[in-house]
Amino acid sequence: MSSDRLIYLPLGGAGEIGMNAYVYGYGKPGKERLIVVDMGVAFPDMDSSPGVDLILPDIQWLKERRDRIEAIFVTHAHEDHVGAVAHTYEALQAPVYARNFTANIARRKMAEHGHPDDAVQTVGAWPHQQGAGPFKVGFLPISHSIPESSALVIDTPEGRLIHSGDFKIDLTPGVGEPFDPALWADVCKDGVKALVCDSTNVFSPLPGRSEGTLGPDIEKLIESASGMVVATTFASNVARVKTLATAGEKAGRSIVLLGRAMKRMVEAALETGVMDDFPPVVSPEDARGIPRENLLLLVTGSQGERRAASAQLARGKYQGIEMKEGDMFLFSAKTIPGNERGVIRIVNQFSELGVDVVDDSSGLYHVSGHANRPDLETLHDVVKPQVLIPMHGEHRHLREHVKIAEGKGITGVLAVNGMMIDLSGNKPTVAEYVETGRTYLDGSVQIGALDGVVRDRIRMALNGHVTITVILDEDDEPLGDPWVDMMGLPETGRSNAPLAEIIEADLAQFLGRSKAATLRDDDKLNEGLKRTARQSAQDEIGKKPEVTVVVSRLS
Amino acid sequence: MSSDRLIYLPLGGAGEIGMNAYVYGYGKPGKERLIVVDMGVAFPDMDSSPGVDLILPDIQWLKERRDRIEAIFVTHAHEDHVGAVAHTYEALQAPVYARNFTANIARRKMAEHGHPDDAVQTVGAWPHQQGAGPFKVGFLPISHSIPESSALVIDTPEGRLIHSGDFKIDLTPGVGEPFDPALWADVCKDGVKALVCDSTNVFSPLPGRSEGTLGPDIEKLIESASGMVVATTFASNVARVKTLATAGEKAGRSIVLLGRAMKRMVEAALETGVMDDFPPVVSPEDARGIPRENLLLLVTGSQGERRAASAQLARGKYQGIEMKEGDMFLFSAKTIPGNERGVIRIVNQFSELGVDVVDDSSGLYHVSGHANRPDLETLHDVVKPQVLIPMHGEHRHLREHVKIAEGKGITGVLAVNGMMIDLSGNKPTVAEYVETGRTYLDGSVQIGALDGVVRDRIRMALNGHVTITVILDEDDEPLGDPWVDMMGLPETGRSNAPLAEIIEADLAQFLGRSKAATLRDDDKLNEGLKRTARQSAQDEIGKKPEVTVVVSRLS
Repeated sequence: MSSDRLIYLPLGGAGEIGMNAYVYGYGKPGKERLIVVDMGVAFPDMDSSPGVDLILPDIQWLKERRDRIEAIFVTHAHEDHVGAVAHTYEALQAPVYARNFTANIARRKMAEHGHPDDAVQTVGAWPHQQGAGPFKVGFLPISHSIPESSALVIDTPEGRLIHSGDFKIDLTPGVGEPFDPALWADVCKDGVKALVCDSTNVFSPLPGRSEGTLGPDIEKLIESASGMVVATTFASNVARVKTLATAGEKAGRSIVLLGRAMKRMVEAALETGVMDDFPPVVSPEDARGIPRENLLLLVTGSQGERRAASAQLARGKYQGIEMKEGDMFLFSAKTIPGNERGVIRIVNQFSELGVDVVDDSSGLYHVSGHANRPDLETLHDVVKPQVLIPMHGEHRHLREHVKIAEGKGITGVLAVNGMMIDLSGNKPTVAEYVETGRTYLDGSVQIGALDGVVRDRIRMALNGHVTITVILDEDDEPLGDPWVDMMGLPETGRSNAPLAEIIEADLAQFLGRSKAATLRDDDKLNEGLKRTARQSAQDEIGKKPEVTVVVSRLS
Repeated sequence: MSSDRLIYLPLGGAGEIGMNAYVYGYGKPGKERLIVVDMGVAFPDMDSSPGVDLILPDIQWLKERRDRIEAIFVTHAHEDHVGAVAHTYEALQAPVYARNFTANIARRKMAEHGHPDDAVQTVGAWPHQQGAGPFKVGFLPISHSIPESSALVIDTPEGRLIHSGDFKIDLTPGVGEPFDPALWADVCKDGVKALVCDSTNVFSPLPGRSEGTLGPDIEKLIESASGMVVATTFASNVARVKTLATAGEKAGRSIVLLGRAMKRMVEAALETGVMDDFPPVVSPEDARGIPRENLLLLVTGSQGERRAASAQLARGKYQGIEMKEGDMFLFSAKTIPGNERGVIRIVNQFSELGVDVVDDSSGLYHVSGHANRPDLETLHDVVKPQVLIPMHGEHRHLREHVKIAEGKGITGVLAVNGMMIDLSGNKPTVAEYVETGRTYLDGSVQIGALDGVVRDRIRMALNGHVTITVILDEDDEPLGDPWVDMMGLPETGRSNAPLAEIIEADLAQFLGRSKAATLRDDDKLNEGLKRTARQSAQDEIGKKPEVTVVVSRLS
């Protein structure tokens, strides 16, 4: 009989930034009672996931152990932490625990999917502890960029764990509780077995700056503007939304919120009473009656998303509001790697409109919500864990964070998605490798990232598509000529004759010299037609298209 | 009778970075004799041009005026300036003039396309001037990052123009001639009508640093490494390749070149005698016999390109060489916006291998080849043009550069692709708007960017593809049921039955209730089938696929 063990298993977020989902378990091997921390999404891109709507963690491992899941704890209301709770609710059926604001956002998501309100339980902050099987879990306030962001204090029979959640060390964070070193020292004073820790900014060498430092510079910038000012940030960066709105109010401007996410976040913050000094807001309709030099618009689309308010303003109008020469557009956000092209596109569109664009290159109008390297070290020093397990980072971030830990004499564990760590006893070990991956929300369907569906779409995007239709009569003889339809391919190539006709001629020739055995055999016939069409296209246009063969037999 | 005029017309490169192609003309309106400066390419991306191999300027306007083109002058051998000469040679048939190194590279391209060697004429540097109709054109050396980079001095009946080409102000550029302020002052002393000027780094506020400052830091870095060192930069950044190789030699390492472009560039530089102190190079085969701590590999793929040497090393092996724990990989290059994901991918792969990656975030291992804002102003001050026309920039760069000019009392002209500027007389005016655009090299075929071919591919990538096959008998009655093939779509959706079967059932129903008039009419039938299939998919999987309808009539 093996004895009880304490395990940690990242299913998402360790080896990537986004899609956070971490499992803790305690019990006999293979029978551990489980809790899940966060259930977030990642965002698709054209390179690797065209047409996909959202990326969810692959929760197959959890589904197969559904009866062992005690609860899901959500640290804060950012999409990469809470975005998948409703998408996975049916499969997991586990209660979701969160603080008031996070729960409000989670409940909105549940409602959209028709799940019950009580799927999400509101719990108070530390020192309250929520029991969950062998675990007791407390929400320990930590500063980030959204209300009520919390680390989790996870008490286990093997000792106390701290799961940092997303954080920065900020004494004036604007929204959410300031980092409280005394409280943290007290919580950690009797020893912490392991700190599972945010790694996002491990490569940023300087101490992070406080959200509180931004207000005056943004206010000055807005005051300097002679036209309308439009500012964008992540709607979920509620701290920034408030910083911007407050600066705008001080500069004598009326605040307008544009974009659904922007309105939803502010609404949730007001509803839950976590942001009661937000300036009054005017509607886009009322804004039209206010001189443009008295307006500050806060809009979605800081990453250049094509459908967001910022991109629509850049293309022309949004909700009756138009930007004009002399207006100012402020990016109070960092461009996430991979989004540069979209952002540059709208900057150039604003340039064409004569709008002055201000970005964060001066360092005055944006600060990160994550702890830089010295701030990570501050947390290490406060928590003094036996073991440090970096999370919320790509492989390079985790590796660097482990190096820092080891440099300070803390045991560092580089655990990527699927690597189950046994934290029992004094030396963490790899207990098992679990198959993990990504699930795509594609339209209304969840598909596996490796199912081949998206791979086929990428191939069609690269190579175009040809449909071949052949009709065979009762004697398996071709009835008429083969027929070709193309999509995403040039109409003519090297010989200047229509490409479809050239392929059709080659296919007819292939059928003409095919033996009866081939014509009778669907697989052989398909294979031969496909190969012929691809070769024909290669000769003519230098490209081998994807091919669909439709053989209709009248027999 | 209108009088002669001097025109400037960008066909590529003004309103984008890449694909440079600028036209100058002199003569009666509509009868100007023309010269073209540069004929470059841009690079495709998955977002907007999946499957495309290269992007060329649309030269339709030039083709229609082929008999009026005197010559094409190429300022330097970077792909965005020389990359399209061979692709457009047949259509334009104009002689190409360039200095020795640039001509060597251009001739290699011509040879690959089977064009004659004498398509490219080698000309000497200033004070030599090449006549071209009403123009006399001189190659005035200017520092950049590739040998023999030159501005063009274009003498016209309306006065002297300076086309800067790509440049930085560098007194120790490593390769190519140092910037020579005295020579430039002399050339410009009698007045310059217009400076057409690189704008790439107009937003960089600090003076640029010299290539010559990098060597010692790179040497120190290589000396600090205990394993193999691999460094990547653009192969066409010949200055950097030399800086790296020299630093490696000083650090006691043997130099290995990996990647075709890397070898080709060094070969061309040695062949033309513009880089005679390049360290000796060992082959990848011989490198295997040398201890890894004595090796410096210079490899292609600084932008994370999947097929380049760096990406292959990150995935495992390249030409028998493998990277190992403790090796170092240096990015001596900037990541071009849009390439971040590819670069991050290989950084993480190296991290998994235990390879330490050093990038340019310290500012020690890379400097730009373009003039920063103060250096642009230096050139303005030396040239003292009446008019400044920014080029080689997106709209935002051109706009900012115009602002700088106007701030100094120089007339600034914001001319984007297709905007023909009349430079005659004392005040530049817009003479005409010319249709311009992009031509895609797609496999072996050139297609218009707006032909719809690539748009269809993008749609298939986003929405998947459905083929519908229907056979109608002699009486226009369906023979059997409609048939559906899918590509890039999930097999099942909401109802858990196979999606293809659900669509087929809906199509059968549609055919069943279609009147004879519809069944007889190809357009109506196609339209109805397509609409039915898309709606059926929307209900089932929340996505409307692209559809190819094949109706076969046995009549």
